[in-house]
Amino acid sequence: MTLPHIVIIGGGFGGLAAARTFRDAAVRITLVDRRNHHLFQPLLYQVATAALNASDIARPIRRILRRQANSEVILGEAESIDRFARKVILGDGEIGYDYLIIASGATHSYFGHDAWERDAPGLKTLEDALEIRRRVLVAYEAAEREPDPEIAHEWMTFVIVGAGPTGVELAGALAEISRRVLARDFRRIDPRRARIMIEGTPRVLPAMTPESSASARRQLERLGVEVMTSTMVTGIDDRGVMHVGGRIPTRTVIWAAGVAASPLGKSLGVPLDRAGRVIVNPDLSVPGMPEVFVIGDLASILKSDGKPVPGLAPAAMQEGRHAARNVAHATRGEPTEPFGYIDKGTLATIGRGAAVAEIGRLKLSGFVAWTAWLFIHIFSQAGIYPGHDAYFFDRRVFSRPARETLCLQTSGIAIGKG
Amino acid sequence: MTLPHIVIIGGGFGGLAAARTFRDAAVRITLVDRRNHHLFQPLLYQVATAALNASDIARPIRRILRRQANSEVILGEAESIDRFARKVILGDGEIGYDYLIIASGATHSYFGHDAWERDAPGLKTLEDALEIRRRVLVAYEAAEREPDPEIAHEWMTFVIVGAGPTGVELAGALAEISRRVLARDFRRIDPRRARIMIEGTPRVLPAMTPESSASARRQLERLGVEVMTSTMVTGIDDRGVMHVGGRIPTRTVIWAAGVAASPLGKSLGVPLDRAGRVIVNPDLSVPGMPEVFVIGDLASILKSDGKPVPGLAPAAMQEGRHAARNVAHATRGEPTEPFGYIDKGTLATIGRGAAVAEIGRLKLSGFVAWTAWLFIHIFSQAGIYPGHDAYFFDRRVFSRPARETLCLQTSGIAIGKG
Repeated sequence: MTLPHIVIIGGGFGGLAAARTFRDAAVRITLVDRRNHHLFQPLLYQVATAALNASDIARPIRRILRRQANSEVILGEAESIDRFARKVILGDGEIGYDYLIIASGATHSYFGHDAWERDAPGLKTLEDALEIRRRVLVAYEAAEREPDPEIAHEWMTFVIVGAGPTGVELAGALAEISRRVLARDFRRIDPRRARIMIEGTPRVLPAMTPESSASARRQLERLGVEVMTSTMVTGIDDRGVMHVGGRIPTRTVIWAAGVAASPLGKSLGVPLDRAGRVIVNPDLSVPGMPEVFVIGDLASILKSDGKPVPGLAPAAMQEGRHAARNVAHATRGEPTEPFGYIDKGTLATIGRGAAVAEIGRLKLSGFVAWTAWLFIHIFSQAGIYPGHDAYFFDRRVFSRPARETLCLQTSGIAIGKG
Repeated sequence: MTLPHIVIIGGGFGGLAAARTFRDAAVRITLVDRRNHHLFQPLLYQVATAALNASDIARPIRRILRRQANSEVILGEAESIDRFARKVILGDGEIGYDYLIIASGATHSYFGHDAWERDAPGLKTLEDALEIRRRVLVAYEAAEREPDPEIAHEWMTFVIVGAGPTGVELAGALAEISRRVLARDFRRIDPRRARIMIEGTPRVLPAMTPESSASARRQLERLGVEVMTSTMVTGIDDRGVMHVGGRIPTRTVIWAAGVAASPLGKSLGVPLDRAGRVIVNPDLSVPGMPEVFVIGDLASILKSDGKPVPGLAPAAMQEGRHAARNVAHATRGEPTEPFGYIDKGTLATIGRGAAVAEIGRLKLSGFVAWTAWLFIHIFSQAGIYPGHDAYFFDRRVFSRPARETLCLQTSGIAIGKG
């Protein structure tokens, strides 16, 4: 008897949770990812701001699944799904499946302004994080060299577009490295006087309550971050950000505003929502394809209250486990079960010792929220990396940003003549 | 009274040692480097083999010189020297000097076969190290996916061209990660069966005695490395290495053979040696330019026995300190002094606990040599980074390669269809 072959596309939180759910099952699992590593995305902003090394938040997928004998890991890029032949088409090959779980996630969206990407990189991958780090460090170097004080000030202005959790965490971390880590490294400029701005509509952390938003705003301002809400960005180039109210001269813009689902959803030929997500059945399967499940940021799923399940790691993990259980049901000819999202709360850090949190009706802010954030991150990792509960949490998370990570790793740095 | 302005090009071992020598002097120092970091190059092979993080062996130059108030650090690329106007011409500006110390080092040379670079990258910078790491990890991934066992074997064959210290250290480290770190991560291939070859002429570690060479060779072979000496590489492409005796099919070649001096030497308009190094006066100044000194890998200097001073970090540091003292003499109108090289010995590690060393008449090998290597590295750092004696020597150097560094950081990986 051949075992059912389950292919999982994506080694993020959702895909890995699905793979781990099958750990004792009589199945064959193939996990495909175009990278060889799982990324602990909630801490990606710390790589972008030189507080953590890239390798502190990444781990080879095959290492995570090393002892799970029913699994294999393939490095490859899934380009489309042939639903009739039941095959995943890779850039350089194909893999047949009996059941398929698609967890290929999302990338950033510029809302039709793809030209902005050059001057306002987003933050989804390790490469993105290292590129943002490089731009920030180069900006300070350029300011140090610049004789014209006005242009030097433009180099020391950093604008973050988008005030969701990623934007808020980036703004807080940028404020901290300029106020603390870099403060005494330069001769001609004072990094403490860097201008860090965040633009968000309609308010900071719009997915949280107005109360938490206001608290986050206050905590950001205490760090010296300028918060601009209800502004609408109309243009971005290498010299500034244009918005309805005017123009901010800056050489460094970071995009933390929009998310678009992985293009893989399109190849299924089923209805997608506005953001390109697959509108799945209550059991997370794709309409008309009981053998294909979609989870994580690529799936459009509603909660019992009619609102969408948020694009967070805990949600993706819950979906991954649920899809895996439904696949197991299906292999036994049993009916599948509808997915029910359990909201474990929302958290965003703002700086060291500063955060906001909403856990059910409980609202926390400041140091208490930050401590909660730390513990929840540690516990959420325990599920993914059994035996490595606090894997990523070495001393650096608790201490000041590591000096070593301030090294630019790219040669041929272009410094504008201004 | 204006202070003499001393410009130092290059923040490697030589340039930094020169800058530090001026720490209490009444001068103005400008150190220019095209990177923002000093690199501890002797450990670069450990970054290439995923044993260390890039940031473990790099440190921002301005951080090292932070407390030296007479110094400033500029990120910029020195393109040429205008000796008549006493200016360093940068890619985007210029810097005038009263005295100049050039320590811009060397890069790899393919002996006229620049086309080989694509298929056989060298190891000089952090980017080089990360590229080699990526190729090695991708090769194992490709072997795992490859159905044709012959092609899979080509992916698992690694050829290092050049058997100087870098080549030997790389070969030993590659053998170790394949035998130990990666051994149980794959399902279809056994990384312990990887073929690791090193080619060198006329023998392994030719700068050391035949006795040490033979010992190094035995230690390499004990790790399963195939040593080929007195072969002559005649061609390299993406499928193999051609040499006089035949052809080795491989998808991964690393170049550790040739070194060429920085092109900056040419712009001085003085005689260079065959490798493009500036033939300096005994006091390290450039003939006809008493205000310009050249040190490190860009300088051609003979020892008292008529042999060249070797291109090692300790030599560059001695020269840096000496050039700085001679500049100080010149500023006071005193005569300069000739440089005398003090040979502190030569060391090469082969693997964990394996090495060869020659210190004066003393020859060590195996674990004793390896221990000596560790201590000498720690002490040599103490000179450069006062107060940070063992800066780079955290637990990772002493333990097994860190798992975390095995993450590929590049997307869009091309895997041949074979």
